Amino acid sequence: MPDAPLPPGSTIGVLGGGQLGRMLATAAAQLGLKCHIYSDVPGVPAFDVAAAHTVAPYDDETALLAFARSVDVATIEFENVPAAALAAVARVTPVFPPVRAVEISQDRLSEKEFLKARSIGVAPFARVESEPDLAAALEAVGTPSLLKTRRLGYDGKGQVHVGPGTDLAVAWERLAGVPALLEAFVDFAFEVSVLAVAGRSGETAFYDASRNRHENQILAEARVPAGLPPEIAAAAREIAARIVRDLDYVGVLGVEMFYCGAAAAAPLLVNEIAPRVHNSGHWTLDACLVSQFENHIRAVAGWPLGATARHSDAVMTNLIGPDADGWRALAGEAGTAVHLYGKREARPGRKMGHVTRLTGQAGMVTD
Amino acid sequence: MPDAPLPPGSTIGVLGGGQLGRMLATAAAQLGLKCHIYSDVPGVPAFDVAAAHTVAPYDDETALLAFARSVDVATIEFENVPAAALAAVARVTPVFPPVRAVEISQDRLSEKEFLKARSIGVAPFARVESEPDLAAALEAVGTPSLLKTRRLGYDGKGQVHVGPGTDLAVAWERLAGVPALLEAFVDFAFEVSVLAVAGRSGETAFYDASRNRHENQILAEARVPAGLPPEIAAAAREIAARIVRDLDYVGVLGVEMFYCGAAAAAPLLVNEIAPRVHNSGHWTLDACLVSQFENHIRAVAGWPLGATARHSDAVMTNLIGPDADGWRALAGEAGTAVHLYGKREARPGRKMGHVTRLTGQAGMVTD
Repeated sequence: MPDAPLPPGSTIGVLGGGQLGRMLATAAAQLGLKCHIYSDVPGVPAFDVAAAHTVAPYDDETALLAFARSVDVATIEFENVPAAALAAVARVTPVFPPVRAVEISQDRLSEKEFLKARSIGVAPFARVESEPDLAAALEAVGTPSLLKTRRLGYDGKGQVHVGPGTDLAVAWERLAGVPALLEAFVDFAFEVSVLAVAGRSGETAFYDASRNRHENQILAEARVPAGLPPEIAAAAREIAARIVRDLDYVGVLGVEMFYCGAAAAAPLLVNEIAPRVHNSGHWTLDACLVSQFENHIRAVAGWPLGATARHSDAVMTNLIGPDADGWRALAGEAGTAVHLYGKREARPGRKMGHVTRLTGQAGMVTD
Repeated sequence: MPDAPLPPGSTIGVLGGGQLGRMLATAAAQLGLKCHIYSDVPGVPAFDVAAAHTVAPYDDETALLAFARSVDVATIEFENVPAAALAAVARVTPVFPPVRAVEISQDRLSEKEFLKARSIGVAPFARVESEPDLAAALEAVGTPSLLKTRRLGYDGKGQVHVGPGTDLAVAWERLAGVPALLEAFVDFAFEVSVLAVAGRSGETAFYDASRNRHENQILAEARVPAGLPPEIAAAAREIAARIVRDLDYVGVLGVEMFYCGAAAAAPLLVNEIAPRVHNSGHWTLDACLVSQFENHIRAVAGWPLGATARHSDAVMTNLIGPDADGWRALAGEAGTAVHLYGKREARPGRKMGHVTRLTGQAGMVTD
């Protein structure tokens, strides 16, 4: 692994061109670095702010190799980049986060097994590969529970709620028979996430945990401070630190956790890890000197990590679908930062932008 | 003048592609707006973060008109865009700031006359069109003084110091006989600048004045707070407000002033106005929720202005020429934001980037 940081003028390759890629590209530009965005869809948000882009399928090895040769390091902005595409790029140029970390988090079962093997709290779960498996899993896990596809699920997609009266054949049918797992439903107080960032020399830093609220299984709001008791906040950070270390991670990693109350046997259960910048960390753009996007770029480029302290308390609210039509009124609110992703069509459930409202000062410690 | 703000997805045309254009383009992207950059030089910093760019001379009317037709509004990132180019663009699409405001500030003499006609304090000055004029001007203005070209001067270029023993023929020769003015040298305590922003509906807002320090006639540092007595800070803002109003201004305007001490007959003398975002306002990127760049974009796009309050005290230091070689150490400083402009060659005197150091919290009022 090269130790010298990539000098200004170097090019970061980003697989994926959505809003996360867009915000990574502007963060890279601030540091004098260029981005080359690879997407299988034309006209994606990141193209407007990137020095170069490629439109090609993720199984086009020629295009992947040409992309890999044109960059100094490559990274991802969504975790479902096919592992074969990552492997092809990694034959030519360094890829961060490490391909193994991405592979583990692409599969909900391997993710849960990775966590469980380290005694990191997770909800009870069981593997389901067939309808009979589902019956056995239900025996072990109980109800209420969630039947989830192992791969390609996000924002509540690929999930079926399983209750005492659920027809298992119908539930199994709804997932179209793909490999799945059954997870016990967790009765939590609220969800938090911790964003960790790990540099190429092994240093780590953590943003303050956010308290997250979902609507229709899509993140609606993230706020800092989360209101966790200090010892729980420290424990959440420890969990993120352990995951980062054991994945040999480089870059920003998001860890979503259920907080079940300080009195619970396991106060924190990890729901999901995301090997990338994360929606629940968008507040860092406006409430920190160095955002999650800049720190991800710093990490993959081998730069020193930037300070993760926040200068302000903040509430980040997603603009989903038609919410973004309110941009004019939002832009007129003092103390509100407006972020729009340049997507043409405001489809229902589509993340069109977000706003961050600063709610107070946080006594930032900068050294 | 259209009142409806340009919706997300609209395109802002920017004449000029340096670092100011680059930071305008990333600010526009945050709001879901695209930028089309026009530059007479290929490979300029703004191209890397813009959705579209044109490379053509500023007297290529065909290219200017094609550019104008491709955008929804046009603006500038340096004040020396030829007035004829601006006029050509303005025949097709709205241009902000208004062409007249740019023309006035392109000519140091018309700028000073504009200010003097409004009883805004300026150093004594006189027009110089010939060597005999210079002798007469010296009689009126005295020494020490500065002989300055009326046009195209910046960062100390196009200036000659005139003292009691100066050979006037040599001084005149050094400016190559172009129209000039002689200005009395001001013995000031320090320089401040006020950045005003004016929207298309006439609303105005002001960033806190910065205290500026120059080295070799190039801005080296800008810090907030400036340390002005409150009544002087209010007066500085009033001056900026008056200029903005009388120029029918739209966008960000920088006003550099000499502060001569509260006891001076004229505590504030305007040195220069810049009809654009300004180097002394780069601290707003890191110490305000809405930067000068975003507010300029908001203004020209007809959006509501964003809050100009600062959340932090800050010191912005330019990275000139080889200073930028220190990027690695600077990136390792906690509490320091690094901004590099993506310029390949670190020529002496060239602005390669800047850093902002947050020095404390400022008790931001956000509503």
